[in-house]
Amino acid sequence: MQLYTRKEIERIIRLDPSLIKVIEQAFTSLVTKKVTMPPIMRIDVPEHNGEVDIKSAFIEGEDSFAVKLSSGFFNNPSLGLPTSGGMMVLLNSRTGQPLAVLADDGMLTDLRTAAAGAVGAAYCSRKDARRAGIIGTGAQARLQLKALTFVRPIDHVYVYGRKVERAEAYKEEMEKELGLPVTICSSVKEAVAESDIVVTTTPSRKPLIFAEWMKPGLHITAMGSDAEHKQELDHGVLEKADSITCDVIHQSERLGELRSAAALKSPVMELGELTSGRKQARTSDEEITVCDLTGTGVQDTAIARFTWNALNNKGDDHDERSQNEHQIHLGR
Amino acid sequence: MQLYTRKEIERIIRLDPSLIKVIEQAFTSLVTKKVTMPPIMRIDVPEHNGEVDIKSAFIEGEDSFAVKLSSGFFNNPSLGLPTSGGMMVLLNSRTGQPLAVLADDGMLTDLRTAAAGAVGAAYCSRKDARRAGIIGTGAQARLQLKALTFVRPIDHVYVYGRKVERAEAYKEEMEKELGLPVTICSSVKEAVAESDIVVTTTPSRKPLIFAEWMKPGLHITAMGSDAEHKQELDHGVLEKADSITCDVIHQSERLGELRSAAALKSPVMELGELTSGRKQARTSDEEITVCDLTGTGVQDTAIARFTWNALNNKGDDHDERSQNEHQIHLGR
Repeated sequence: MQLYTRKEIERIIRLDPSLIKVIEQAFTSLVTKKVTMPPIMRIDVPEHNGEVDIKSAFIEGEDSFAVKLSSGFFNNPSLGLPTSGGMMVLLNSRTGQPLAVLADDGMLTDLRTAAAGAVGAAYCSRKDARRAGIIGTGAQARLQLKALTFVRPIDHVYVYGRKVERAEAYKEEMEKELGLPVTICSSVKEAVAESDIVVTTTPSRKPLIFAEWMKPGLHITAMGSDAEHKQELDHGVLEKADSITCDVIHQSERLGELRSAAALKSPVMELGELTSGRKQARTSDEEITVCDLTGTGVQDTAIARFTWNALNNKGDDHDERSQNEHQIHLGR
Repeated sequence: MQLYTRKEIERIIRLDPSLIKVIEQAFTSLVTKKVTMPPIMRIDVPEHNGEVDIKSAFIEGEDSFAVKLSSGFFNNPSLGLPTSGGMMVLLNSRTGQPLAVLADDGMLTDLRTAAAGAVGAAYCSRKDARRAGIIGTGAQARLQLKALTFVRPIDHVYVYGRKVERAEAYKEEMEKELGLPVTICSSVKEAVAESDIVVTTTPSRKPLIFAEWMKPGLHITAMGSDAEHKQELDHGVLEKADSITCDVIHQSERLGELRSAAALKSPVMELGELTSGRKQARTSDEEITVCDLTGTGVQDTAIARFTWNALNNKGDDHDERSQNEHQIHLGR
């Protein structure tokens, strides 16, 4: 068994089209293959305001699978440490023996989460969506925007954060990194009003977006809520949406935005049903679409395998594989 | 974070009185402290006749806790590999950050399981129990016997295994290692008839021991069943027992011997209630006692912490701590 540090992993894995396609494929597996994906295991550490979540999935026919630990310790910032962390263990599917420990400190979770956002937007939002609204100013606010640029012709960003200085840092960083103009909004409402696609990336415990702000053609990806006490969308948003897609329905009902939903317009779909071509989220430019992501074990297994292959030079070469590729087309 | 191999761990941890006391204390924590111990997470790999179980527990006040992966891949013997394996990750309770990966290949699970057997026998069996009946001839058949010798004056061993050659190998090894005479029995019934304490260590799917074989003073520890389809004791054994103790009742009801039990003589107790002095399993030399062990996350956290301390020389010195100590007295 080998141990890889975050530094080693960072050298070889980044958010790029190859990774987005790997995560797209993982969602397809969920509906086209036999997958063992047990419910998330959560270990609470109430004394230190922390929790560890464990996710895993075995996909039929694959020679390895991952067990992922991700931690959220909310007193960490006062100790000068990041709130979230984690690691993945890759196991041999035939023997159960550990192949590698990816001590990534949560980096791979961040990347596979952002990649899922790109997949959600690629299958739900209008093809000509170019204005991105980002709610929140943390790591996912950055990565989700970057991921969007691979699947939609984003040309303007509208960000809202509670702390102005963090929004300003976000603007400066993103303008520099992505070469896109970023406008700081003074409210969530304003960001929604300006945008074709809105991504919510917060740990909010109460709704941030309301039904009366919905407008034709809007797509919202809500990726912040992943626990019983979190919520980013008012139930009215879900009730007004023409289509709702989740990564995993039963998980969204327990930990995501579906918890608050009552009368929906149509049956909720799973992302794998879209990526596999079995269903379609959007049938016109006027429809309002919502995609709720809570995070799944298949994404972890997919990125752990992708990383392991790259570390062992079994996959495509990092530099070659996507240097000249920016916007990509997913699916059909 | 540090990675320790099985070889490094073997040099420093073995089944001895210190370890048995650590596991005794872990059970006490379960009833005297706030403990977060989520249900076992199981990932099935049906394609390869395998499964991975994940256990964990955080004990209030402790500065670290473990997440343990244990695997059972039942085609492994045909590949020349052991069926079971595993590893532990020790996490910092304050920050969630991984401290160490103990790549022990399941060795620590084996040891903490045997240590729990010793704790069960110490609190349930007659103090003068000296004849040990062992059902099964695998790794736990060896370790459970060794563990027993630390808590009871064992002077004769009766072993039963389906394969004679494996029973003969067991006899030879145990006689040499422990200096105790081992008699190979031709049936489970014979082994039970000869013994004061019986330990079942098999993956049996149907009962091996029946009520009509019960005799005054007998103690049985059943440690084989840890899954819905396994069973070592006929329901009549449980119904005839004067006292039944489990490591964790709800787990035994799901995965252990309690699944098959109907009308019991008295309420089932947990091992921690015995080790903490709150309850007593045996009140006379004539009573029949049963202890069912399914394996718990607190044991994993306890042995992972103990190992980590030993690896970092924070604990007692390996050689000093128990060289001159053989039989020990647990609890009051």
